[in-house]
This record gives sequence, structure tokens and C-alpha cells, in this order.
Amino acid sequence: MPYPITITQTDRKKEKPDSSCLGFGRYFTDHMFVMDYSAEIGWHDPRIVPYAPLALDPAALVLHYGQAIFEGMKAYRTSDDRILLFRPEKNAQRLNLSAARLSMPSIDEELFLEALRTLISLEKDWVPRERGTSLYIRPFMFATEPYLGVRASESYKLVIVLSPVGAYYAGGMKPVKIHVESRYVRAVRGGTGFAKVSGNYAASLKAQEDAHAKGYEQVLWLDAIENKYIEEVGSMNVFFKINGEVWTPPLHGSILGGITRDSVIHLLRDWGIPVREEKLSMEDLYVAYTRGELEEAFGTGTAAVVSPIGVLGWNDHHMVINHEQIGELTAKLYGTLTGIQYGEIADPYGWIVEVE
Amino acid sequence: MPYPITITQTDRKKEKPDSSCLGFGRYFTDHMFVMDYSAEIGWHDPRIVPYAPLALDPAALVLHYGQAIFEGMKAYRTSDDRILLFRPEKNAQRLNLSAARLSMPSIDEELFLEALRTLISLEKDWVPRERGTSLYIRPFMFATEPYLGVRASESYKLVIVLSPVGAYYAGGMKPVKIHVESRYVRAVRGGTGFAKVSGNYAASLKAQEDAHAKGYEQVLWLDAIENKYIEEVGSMNVFFKINGEVWTPPLHGSILGGITRDSVIHLLRDWGIPVREEKLSMEDLYVAYTRGELEEAFGTGTAAVVSPIGVLGWNDHHMVINHEQIGELTAKLYGTLTGIQYGEIADPYGWIVEVE
Repeated sequence: MPYPITITQTDRKKEKPDSSCLGFGRYFTDHMFVMDYSAEIGWHDPRIVPYAPLALDPAALVLHYGQAIFEGMKAYRTSDDRILLFRPEKNAQRLNLSAARLSMPSIDEELFLEALRTLISLEKDWVPRERGTSLYIRPFMFATEPYLGVRASESYKLVIVLSPVGAYYAGGMKPVKIHVESRYVRAVRGGTGFAKVSGNYAASLKAQEDAHAKGYEQVLWLDAIENKYIEEVGSMNVFFKINGEVWTPPLHGSILGGITRDSVIHLLRDWGIPVREEKLSMEDLYVAYTRGELEEAFGTGTAAVVSPIGVLGWNDHHMVINHEQIGELTAKLYGTLTGIQYGEIADPYGWIVEVE
Repeated sequence: MPYPITITQTDRKKEKPDSSCLGFGRYFTDHMFVMDYSAEIGWHDPRIVPYAPLALDPAALVLHYGQAIFEGMKAYRTSDDRILLFRPEKNAQRLNLSAARLSMPSIDEELFLEALRTLISLEKDWVPRERGTSLYIRPFMFATEPYLGVRASESYKLVIVLSPVGAYYAGGMKPVKIHVESRYVRAVRGGTGFAKVSGNYAASLKAQEDAHAKGYEQVLWLDAIENKYIEEVGSMNVFFKINGEVWTPPLHGSILGGITRDSVIHLLRDWGIPVREEKLSMEDLYVAYTRGELEEAFGTGTAAVVSPIGVLGWNDHHMVINHEQIGELTAKLYGTLTGIQYGEIADPYGWIVEVE
């Protein structure tokens, strides 16, 4: 092993929650991975330790100037008890992309993958067994230097925590109602929208709350420049099937390059379905809708994998998509991706990495 | 006293640093104010405790989705040993404005001011004596709930720490060189730029680093929509004296409403100098410059109070303002504001609050 990750095992293991009431991001496993960075010696002391509170100086820069990034991924248990990761190298790459945007140090991607494998292997009993459940993996990096000047921190922590999570569609997959947001924006070209930066999510909460109050489950974000072009849905990428073609916004700086997004595009092209990574305005989407050409709509992300959209509320328009039913293509994408993730169908793409 | 703030005094006081080498935001006093919020009981347990690390669950929402806001202000020691605050009620109001934008709970502004007074009074020996030095006050609020779902936290901490800081212009006031940033943006209408939100500052670091590498001290931010209109300079508001009038960008959603900005506008109007809170493009500024009408330029903020701008680098243009000398109006504003802050000149505006 190229990196000596030290392991300190806990002497009091937690009781594992019942897998029927896991929910999302509520329970955490017995251990976590931690590694420190200082300007003098770089990344050092990679270690697995008991899950416990972190001691943070009140002046730690993360609490003041928000220098924090994260990743999200899952480990899946197959029916023959293997544990699989889905394209983890993409998360390693994106973590470094995010780090660069916030002037944070890059990590060695091999060490990151080794840390994942070692931690998950140690916690393998925490990967829940029911189909649809998984072990959610949350790597995050944040500024720790106690200093109040506005500049990049000279010290950081990289932490990986694991959380067993329930099936996203515990009550069955159901198309969601989405409010097209015209007041608040998520990101803008030249900003941090393309990176997985903590502040992007803080900025999104108010619109989400307002949408909930109006009876919607999430918001569809429009571009910040013209308030016209479709960007993302909640914290997912978004796709529309229009007249046999699939549209998704291009990655032009304000949109997160989702790994599920990339996988969906891959599958669609493999299946001979045209994919247009092009700007799409709400006006044009509405025209397609009125012509009966808007066939399906869905979001993509690690948590839901694929989330069908049943209703779009845009100003006074109440757009009902595919009779609020799950579209055929949406269902096929969900089935294929989760089939690959749970090792039930062949993975011709090299996306699956088994944890030994 | 309407709010019972409990006080636990430290039993080992720190040695106070020499006031000639304080710098900014490096040293912290013996105590801090802490108050907790939970959805069930609201804000509770306001207390002053020894300055010490905070224990934070690794899943605390602030480390993942950046729900964090802050304020910045100063306490000044007068030559007759009184301790003064400058418009602290404005910071209380802005903290609540920021809280609302990030779906965080509001605080009782009276309690906030009481907390400030109590803490500063306890730490009054930490307010340094030399003219130009001060006790920097950093209130901040962040999400503490251990949860990985993207929604507003159900628990928070409000903390106030104090840091004795050196004179901003220890080597004498000197006009700075500013790079006009055209690649990165700080904020956009519909985003969080008008609030004092941690993520705004994280987003600004990369441009600042790039500007340093080019030999500039800070960046001038342009608007995110057209990349044309002047917004802020570094983390300060910006003013230009053009042909006898003073221009500053209007507060239209992407610009922080600085308390120094507001005070400067107040003084200028009081002095009969026309202030135009209007959009100003770099093109128009450049035209004024070439005509010899750009007389002075300066930033305003709590740390520097007033910071003269000597050079603006915009694409291929190297604009030298007022021969890189401190302008007359810039100096008068700086002298008046710091004079009021240190209790040296009368405060006809009711800006000063004495800490008993």
C-alpha cells in the first residue's frame, strides 16, 4: 500500500439502525477518515479514527469565509454480498476541481480512493442489505486555520464520513412537482456553480423553502443572466425528452457536472437516442409542451439517481408532464443505472469498482 | 437586565500581545459569547465562556452546505480611556438580514447588543491603546445540526469572538493597486451578494490570488450580468469622485450594504457634496479618466475605514488615479470617520455607543 493509513478502532461500536427507518444522512458509522493539510508539510497523517466531534477553533476560517467543498457517492451491496462503488474516480477528480476553484490544496486521487476502500472495507457491515438502500459516502474538505483575514487558509482537513441510507423511493418512485424559480438564482458564470462548493447549497435554501410553501417539492433554477434558460433542478441536473430527443443544459460554468448526468448521457448515446447538450429556455420548453412534444422530464443525482418530474409550475402555467406518470425512458435509465450499481446487470462501461 | 447572560471566567488569562505586532485577526481574547438555537426552544443559554475550541459533529450542516453568516465591527479606545462602538445596531440589523437570506433564525437585536456590551466590558483590557489599533469584533452564526439532507438546519450557534488588531495603515496610508476582474464574479442579483454570507468570501479568493500574482493588491468586481458595471472592490464598497460628484454603485441585490458606505454617504451629503448612487460602467469611468475628470477613488469597509485607490488595471489600461496620491476628500472622510470613532471629534449623528 503506497499510503500508510493508520487505523484506530473504536472500542464501543454503535447499534446499527433498522434498515427500514434509515432515511437520509441521519446515522453515521463507527469510524471516519481524517487527513490534515498544512502549508509547510502538505497533506499528512491520513488516519481512520472513531467517529467523534471535531474540535474547531472559533476562528477557523471555514466558519467565517466558507472555504468548504464536498462530494457525495454511494456504496451498494449486491445480492451476493459484494460491495460496489460507482465511478469513484470521478468524485476524486471533481473534488480537486472544486478545491481549485476555492484556492484549496488538491489531493492525491489515488490516496483518496485508497482511503475510501479502506474505510468502507472496515465498515462493510454498515452497508445495508435491502435493495435500494446504500451506504452514502460524504468526503468533505474545509479550512481550519484560526485567522480572520480574507484569504485562503493555510490549513485544512479532509474528512470522509459514511451514512447508511434508506431507499430514496421507499414508497415507490413518484413524479415530483417543481416550481420554476424566477426570483432567486443558484449560480452564475464566473461564480462557483460548476464546483461542489458548500456556499452554493446555502444560497439555494430560501428558494427551496418558498417552493415548499407553495406546494412544490423542489425548484427549477434558471440562468442568472437572462432568467430564461434552464439550469438545474434542486441539487440535480435536469433532462427533458422532447420529440424523441433528450435535452440537457451544457456545462458552461454555472452548472455542476453531475456524475449521474454524465452516465445518463453515456447510456442515451449508447442506446442511439440523440442528446442535445444545448441551452433550452423555459419559453421554448413551454412551446414544446403546448405542442404535445414534451414527453418526459427528470432530474439526476447521486441520492435519487433519476427523479421523474410530473409538474412544472412556471408563472401562471401549470405544466403536467406525461400525465404525472413515470416516463418509459426515465424508468429505463433508472433501471439500468441502479441495475449496474447493484451488480444486477453487466457493466460494459467500467463504472463499477468493487471494494475488497 | 432583560437577558440573563451567564459568565464563566477563565482561570488562566492569556498574555496580551505587544500592540505593535498585532496584525489582523491573529490574536483572540480570553472569553467569547456563545448562544444556542434549536427549533424546539429557539435561542437559549446566552453565555460568556473561556475562548476554547468548539466541538462540532463531522456532519454539522455548516461543514457541508455552508449555512453561515457573520458581522465585523470594532471597539475603539479613546484617549480618555472610554470604549466606543460605531453604529453597532446596524450590524445587528444586517446580521438578521443575512440570516433571513440563508433561512436562519433571527436574533433579538437588543440581546445581541447586550451580549456585545457585556463581552467587551469583561474584555476591556484587551482594547489596545495606540491610535489606529482597535478590538475587532466578530459575531458569526452557523448551522450545527448533524444531518446531510439539503435543507435549513434545525440548530445553530451564535458566537462572538474578539481580536485586538493593529492599525490598518501601520506604515501610513498608501493608495492600492486594483485589478479590474473580468473572469470571476463575486455575486449576482437573486444570489447572496447583499448579505454577509460566508460563501461570498470563499467565492472571492481565487480572483484575489490571481490579482496578487499580477502585482495587484485587490480586485474590482464587475456585475455578473453584463460584466460591465462596477460593484465592489475586494470586500469593500467603492466610491469614485468624478468632476466634483461622488459615485457609488446602488444596492440592487448583489452589493453588500456597508455600514462605512452608509456613513460616508451621510457625511458627503452633510458636506454638500453630490452623491450619485447609480450604476457606473468601467467604460464610463475610463472616459472620465481620459478626460481628467476622475479625481479620486477609494474603498470603504470596517477594517480599513477608507482605502485610497491609486491604480486601476483594466484589460490593457493602466489607470493612475490622482498621481497615486491620497485625495483630499478621501483623507477628509478618513479623518472624520476615525475622529468620530476614537471620540476625538463630535458625533452629531448619534453613531457612537459607549461601552460602560
